[in-house]
Amino acid sequence: MRPAVTLTLAAIASACIVTFVPVAAGQPDDVSPIFGVRIPEGYRNWEMVAVAHESGLDELRGVLGNDVALKSYREGITPFPDGTVLAKLAWKHVPVPGINGAFVTGAATTVQIMVKDSKKYASTGGWGFGRFINGKPVDVAQHRTCFACHEAHASDHDFVFTRFAR
Amino acid sequence: MRPAVTLTLAAIASACIVTFVPVAAGQPDDVSPIFGVRIPEGYRNWEMVAVAHESGLDELRGVLGNDVALKSYREGITPFPDGTVLAKLAWKHVPVPGINGAFVTGAATTVQIMVKDSKKYASTGGWGFGRFINGKPVDVAQHRTCFACHEAHASDHDFVFTRFAR
Repeated sequence: MRPAVTLTLAAIASACIVTFVPVAAGQPDDVSPIFGVRIPEGYRNWEMVAVAHESGLDELRGVLGNDVALKSYREGITPFPDGTVLAKLAWKHVPVPGINGAFVTGAATTVQIMVKDSKKYASTGGWGFGRFINGKPVDVAQHRTCFACHEAHASDHDFVFTRFAR
Repeated sequence: MRPAVTLTLAAIASACIVTFVPVAAGQPDDVSPIFGVRIPEGYRNWEMVAVAHESGLDELRGVLGNDVALKSYREGITPFPDGTVLAKLAWKHVPVPGINGAFVTGAATTVQIMVKDSKKYASTGGWGFGRFINGKPVDVAQHRTCFACHEAHASDHDFVFTRFAR
């Protein structure tokens, strides 16, 4: 016997979304959906732009940038030029035993990448996004939220939240 | 009339402390007391070791290291070799308007430097310390507290609090 097939609205919507994802079919498993962004080689050696704390997620973050990014930050130039890449590294926010009020980085949670290509990503402010857990991209639904939030809160800084910490 | 001179115990103690500071007399104003440590050239271009949050001081911190430091961190080797330099940059921990629970770096507060020279700083675990506000070192009394705290809490990691954030 073949099982009855019941298409829910959610399943239909999901199928429709997949058809609009350029890199979904057969894409390597280290590439973000929608944007096709990878974790760049050597990013952990990049210079630090700034750090941050996300108390809702109980995370500390360090934002690194490639040479193109750092040059723009230091010169105070926006929009960032094509070739800019930013990497946000997130870790759990863990207390230091014996020192009240001190918190350091614990286990890694996510790595988030932004790549500037004003033609390729014209519909999302020129930015492609990738959000990775253990080196693997999260799903389409999560990637659909990236630009909406950056657009809502950081449109005055080329859709980039992070400012250079001097 | 000349004012009467009254020496308090505190003033005497203060004078005595000064006589024990090797670099106090005539030292440049960018060098830490006791240790003679400067803010190193180009430290802001160094790689990131990790980030931290000090809620008591309402600060976020980024710890950077020179090439010697990063090599040791990546190889997991302690004690750190002579020539290791670490720079902790601290900023105010400021909320992001409109995003509940998100905090970023505000105004810079201090820059703190640790320099490894096992002979020069033999009495303080091989480390020289410098704590700077607006590029100027803080006073002798504050510099006397550095090693005691590192010794009490980080003696299992060559007196260095910060671990590498992978």
